[in-house]
Amino acid sequence: MNMVANLPKHGPLVAIGGAEDKTQETAILKQVLTLSGRKAPVVGVITTASAIPQEVFEGYEAVFTALDAGEVLDIRIRERADAADEGFVAMVKRADVIFISGGDQMRLTNILGGSAVLEAIRKRHAEGAVVAGTSAGAACQSATMVYGGAADDSLRKGAVKMAAGFGLVEGVIIDTHFLERGRFSRLMEVGATNPEFLGVGIGEDAAVLFDGDTILAFGPGHVILVDSSNITGSNVFELDDGEAVTVHNVTMHALVDGYGYSLSDRQVLGPKELGAQSLERRIAYT
Amino acid sequence: MNMVANLPKHGPLVAIGGAEDKTQETAILKQVLTLSGRKAPVVGVITTASAIPQEVFEGYEAVFTALDAGEVLDIRIRERADAADEGFVAMVKRADVIFISGGDQMRLTNILGGSAVLEAIRKRHAEGAVVAGTSAGAACQSATMVYGGAADDSLRKGAVKMAAGFGLVEGVIIDTHFLERGRFSRLMEVGATNPEFLGVGIGEDAAVLFDGDTILAFGPGHVILVDSSNITGSNVFELDDGEAVTVHNVTMHALVDGYGYSLSDRQVLGPKELGAQSLERRIAYT
Repeated sequence: MNMVANLPKHGPLVAIGGAEDKTQETAILKQVLTLSGRKAPVVGVITTASAIPQEVFEGYEAVFTALDAGEVLDIRIRERADAADEGFVAMVKRADVIFISGGDQMRLTNILGGSAVLEAIRKRHAEGAVVAGTSAGAACQSATMVYGGAADDSLRKGAVKMAAGFGLVEGVIIDTHFLERGRFSRLMEVGATNPEFLGVGIGEDAAVLFDGDTILAFGPGHVILVDSSNITGSNVFELDDGEAVTVHNVTMHALVDGYGYSLSDRQVLGPKELGAQSLERRIAYT
Repeated sequence: MNMVANLPKHGPLVAIGGAEDKTQETAILKQVLTLSGRKAPVVGVITTASAIPQEVFEGYEAVFTALDAGEVLDIRIRERADAADEGFVAMVKRADVIFISGGDQMRLTNILGGSAVLEAIRKRHAEGAVVAGTSAGAACQSATMVYGGAADDSLRKGAVKMAAGFGLVEGVIIDTHFLERGRFSRLMEVGATNPEFLGVGIGEDAAVLFDGDTILAFGPGHVILVDSSNITGSNVFELDDGEAVTVHNVTMHALVDGYGYSLSDRQVLGPKELGAQSLERRIAYT
């Protein structure tokens, strides 16, 4: 089903909920660089999602430089032809951290989908490079991505708009700006359409690290997990578009920094259970 | 603990999530009048919560008159002295339906708390009268009421503001404008502070009827139930004010018209399980 299902994925994958407050996000971005295990990592910034790539790149260039990046590469892909460009492929190959900015996730999949650059990103990720993204750059990471649907219209059949994402992580569907835009009902609708996938709702000043079977929350904000695997009823398949969806027994968890989740056990892991797997310990030993 | 815990409560209690669209709410208000079991019920409208009582009263007077109310009483209580007024007490005693408008729920509890009019409302409710309220008029119905806290700030200890409500219904805490203002995190925080209470989050075009042990959803919108009774962990008591709250294994249900919930079994009831208890059947036999 999923073309990348059997590829090994050794690099850390980080999804950030988007952040207006760059001071907060800097704490998260610092962790992202640290996860590369390099003292002066090469960071490649992909601003394809954004309508103002120059401004966005300059912002990240300043932050990453301040955080001791060895080099910050401007992977300025604006159209599908750019995504086939050997120069950009070479930049991805050199990057220790590939950072995908916010904007419109549909631009990301439309421009990068099936491209040489995306192929290079997957290869670098498999080789151990960090892939991280914020907002649209986070939403695109799951195999099926959410790209639209007003929160106050959702839980109406068809209200939440989904499309194929990059498939960098299995078993989850990612949503961002989650508490700030009240998107709980979006992931409840997503869960009703297919309870197999864990909804990962990331707040604006929060992030998750996908670490194999474990999801680790970090940053000052919240990560809300929406587990629909035990739902006992829903009318979703009986409805016409726009009709009100009912769904029963959705399990939710609010995680904060230091907490994690086991995807196979569908269980929250506290700081004690995480032990050596915690981000702090993990970083201390890289 | 709760002064009204042992009073019998025989009248229907209806909480409405607030509605901009009066056409939608009319469908709900029609059901409210029908629940009185009278052909031309006397409706008493309490606009204490509102800053524009004249406008609000005229709106409801027109709607209720169109819905064949026998009389619409303007219970214009603006300060605590009014709430002791025998004329207003007499109006409440005559009302088959007592309707509490939206506005600021703190005005309701501050002005009506401990008053002769509130005592009269409780007595009429116990005798069988319908009590219904929308927005602030719904939030005030639980023993502990939510009166503030921005949704995007909640799940921070102390962010959700609570105070003592009217205690017309046991075991729940009511929130309104729920999907429209993304208030899921508010009721998650409320549940973490005391998991005994079921969070009832009512959307703007939705309503619930509290019918003894059963909650019945009606209207075109959604009712979200937030059940924290099985939460397995939270850090809420370890935190200082403003720190991020974690909470694990919150159960949520999205109900639509025709669905209900058993408070004692903590279980969703579908149209089949509800059978004769459903609102349609209930109204057909009144």
